Amino acid sequence: MRVDVVILPSLLTPANLAGKTAVVFDVLRATTSIAAAIAVGVRSIRIFSDIASAAAAAKAESRENTEEDPPLLAGEVAALRPPGFDLGNSPRQYNSSHRGWRIFLATTNGTRAIMAASGAATVLTAALVNAAATAKFCRSLGADVTLLCAGTEGQFSLEDFIGTGAVLAALRQTGEITVGNDAALAAEALFTARRDQLRATLASGHGGHNVVAAGLEPDIDFAARLDALDVVCRVEDLEITAVI
Amino acid sequence: MRVDVVILPSLLTPANLAGKTAVVFDVLRATTSIAAAIAVGVRSIRIFSDIASAAAAAKAESRENTEEDPPLLAGEVAALRPPGFDLGNSPRQYNSSHRGWRIFLATTNGTRAIMAASGAATVLTAALVNAAATAKFCRSLGADVTLLCAGTEGQFSLEDFIGTGAVLAALRQTGEITVGNDAALAAEALFTARRDQLRATLASGHGGHNVVAAGLEPDIDFAARLDALDVVCRVEDLEITAVI
Repeated sequence: MRVDVVILPSLLTPANLAGKTAVVFDVLRATTSIAAAIAVGVRSIRIFSDIASAAAAAKAESRENTEEDPPLLAGEVAALRPPGFDLGNSPRQYNSSHRGWRIFLATTNGTRAIMAASGAATVLTAALVNAAATAKFCRSLGADVTLLCAGTEGQFSLEDFIGTGAVLAALRQTGEITVGNDAALAAEALFTARRDQLRATLASGHGGHNVVAAGLEPDIDFAARLDALDVVCRVEDLEITAVI
Repeated sequence: MRVDVVILPSLLTPANLAGKTAVVFDVLRATTSIAAAIAVGVRSIRIFSDIASAAAAAKAESRENTEEDPPLLAGEVAALRPPGFDLGNSPRQYNSSHRGWRIFLATTNGTRAIMAASGAATVLTAALVNAAATAKFCRSLGADVTLLCAGTEGQFSLEDFIGTGAVLAALRQTGEITVGNDAALAAEALFTARRDQLRATLASGHGGHNVVAAGLEPDIDFAARLDALDVVCRVEDLEITAVI
């Protein structure tokens, strides 16, 4: 099983996707929050590239579909819950009261990466919190794997890179792997060097600074809890559901 | 002094260059060989993006300028010296017999990166072999620094990333620095984790495999010799000379 890491969506090539499993990382905080939501039993998470389109879709949905509960709106403006939204982008906000609900989540970098990965045979989202579960599922699929960092506005993101290293290291625990490219070598080496300081490493990056500045430091603690959640998150048509 | 790392030329922004010192890394092997050539007293190294244009320029030069020795042609095809060229791309080939000569060097990834960095106030080339000397000179200039990986055909290169980490760590020895972006955090962490295994780390990457496959493993030993050369290589108009 060959495993490649791609540092930014703009660096994807068709060969990274055709017939492969693509796993998208936006560790602070979208894909950590998605894992947290799936873990409490959210029914599905539909993703949108901005808060306006998420809000508009939720409104239309509520008008057209009166038979089921409307979706909950989740997103962020400067790391905080937008006005009129039900939820922010914190992984800590999900609890048993959200079981069975649908979420409409606005996440700019995450949506961009997921759309870029759509040519893969299977698309998953993952983070440090569900690295081992994701690796185990990738092994069961058997296809080669591309671990894709969402990055931040087109630039390299430390926490996403560490996340890919975590899944790569977990894949190695499940059987033989071929480390496909130099980014994968670097990501695994960096994760291995920092696996006992994940919290500090996440906090040191640009994304970590923004989360701390918004007063949400416990979100970093949450995101750094390696393998805390036994969930696998699969994307189909921009909608994310649990792999049972 | 702010220090950023840019993983590929395609990710450069104007803010990475304006008023700054840009340092280009193509560790296996162009910028290691450039440092080696400068160290033996080569007069200058003019760079070209392919062997045909280097050869054509050398021919034209020889016709037009009969007063001085013609340039030596250096480059590679599949890691080896091209037919009709005086030199390959090995850093080990430079010795005192090359003192005072001009080199025309064909280097695809290196030339692309150097051209992309041309908006900087100062452009240098560097590698592991002259990390400390380069850092000391950057400090003397005082401007913020952008460390640019050449990469390989548009993809992330492990050895270039390690090289930027080496200069970043060396800059930290010269005084205070502000680590500007996440790529710089990751590069320094990776260099720190691997500084006692530089040879093995270079050999593990895609570029290292190619060099070994061509029977040139000693080039990796050479490239891994941290701070072995006390030279600084400055680029002006695609011509590289020693900073005295």
